[in-house]
Amino acid sequence: MRVEIWTDINCPFCYIGKARFEQALDAFPHKAEVEVVHRSFELDPTVKKDFTGLVVPHIAEKYGISEAQAAANEKGLGQQAGALGLPYLTEGRDYGNSFDLHRLLHLAHERGLQDAMIDALYRGNFAEDASVFADEEHVVKLAVDAGLDETEVRGVLADPEAYADAVRADEQEAAALGATGVPFFVLDRKFGVSGAQPAEVFTQALTQAWSARSPLTAIETAQSADGDVCGPDGCAVPQA
Amino acid sequence: MRVEIWTDINCPFCYIGKARFEQALDAFPHKAEVEVVHRSFELDPTVKKDFTGLVVPHIAEKYGISEAQAAANEKGLGQQAGALGLPYLTEGRDYGNSFDLHRLLHLAHERGLQDAMIDALYRGNFAEDASVFADEEHVVKLAVDAGLDETEVRGVLADPEAYADAVRADEQEAAALGATGVPFFVLDRKFGVSGAQPAEVFTQALTQAWSARSPLTAIETAQSADGDVCGPDGCAVPQA
Repeated sequence: MRVEIWTDINCPFCYIGKARFEQALDAFPHKAEVEVVHRSFELDPTVKKDFTGLVVPHIAEKYGISEAQAAANEKGLGQQAGALGLPYLTEGRDYGNSFDLHRLLHLAHERGLQDAMIDALYRGNFAEDASVFADEEHVVKLAVDAGLDETEVRGVLADPEAYADAVRADEQEAAALGATGVPFFVLDRKFGVSGAQPAEVFTQALTQAWSARSPLTAIETAQSADGDVCGPDGCAVPQA
Repeated sequence: MRVEIWTDINCPFCYIGKARFEQALDAFPHKAEVEVVHRSFELDPTVKKDFTGLVVPHIAEKYGISEAQAAANEKGLGQQAGALGLPYLTEGRDYGNSFDLHRLLHLAHERGLQDAMIDALYRGNFAEDASVFADEEHVVKLAVDAGLDETEVRGVLADPEAYADAVRADEQEAAALGATGVPFFVLDRKFGVSGAQPAEVFTQALTQAWSARSPLTAIETAQSADGDVCGPDGCAVPQA
């Protein structure tokens, strides 16, 4: 079974939602047969590369609320994260353009290190002072901590086209699947879960998707009755 | 939409089936939104590494038919291939252990070159005299022709564990999906097509899977009513 999770490093509910999903997955009897893939979704692709701004005043302005209220929201997020054992700095978090981080997550996927890399980027963004949006050395260090090769990481960061198409393809798929926000969980392309739901909802989704997992619907037509197939005993070549 | 094709390089119907599938895909209006992944299936994992045997006597013995009949079968396959514009040497084809070739196909997938690599391996096996099972230099040349890095290819061939787990995982998934032979086509993990079917069957499968593609079934529970989600306009943090 395959779970795809659209996320953005800017998104606190993605950080929290991943931990809740993993609570459900850890207790899921078929965990070993579940493949998890993280996919790219930029919350705000219009933010300039290398820009960094503080989240609290940004949120206050966006919603027309006071900075005190926005700061209280961050504290609330910090409490939700803390309840899951996730570190969260409730003051001073910044936001920025995540395109390069998504490109690195695609590199990490190819190296079998995507889960370690996304955890490192979340930690770097939500629990460390240095910016992941405006401090390339911080990002490189997080990637190396996750097991990636430093030269390769720097190579991808230096080449703006590396994995750029993969990021865009993920974003197009998200739109096609109807995702307007993240985290967005898709199970076997059959079931969708939107948001950082409680673990019980993910348990239900995993269970439901597991039941629906098989059998495949066989495409059958008049022509397909005797498909040409090779099996362990050889190929079913019609004998003259 | 995602199409996974389980195949073996030993399998003439996989070679032929791929071309028929591509006829359908080329004419499919949503081709640009279809991702194709090739997955591993060994027709005979018991064959020793580096072994090479001729297909015709092997088939004759396996089915208890004459070598003349087995040779005629190869000619029949050559005609089916030829009808699709695929080169096929109808005499002297060999068989062998394909595990290393599958490992290379996983490397190629990571490099975005899997389609080129599988085409190269099919051509190498079905249309060239040198063996892909017992002639490593032939395989390296095919891989380099497909765009892979020679040093990396030799590195994977020299390390028997490189991508070995990925090959085994594919094979376990094939079994879980009910595949007993190849080619086996799976569309969005919802629809299955077994065998080198006529292009029309693939057209039907693509069309049917495309219609079934969305919407996802939303997992909804009492708890999930107000999922915590971040969107382009910010995160829906409950306001006190």
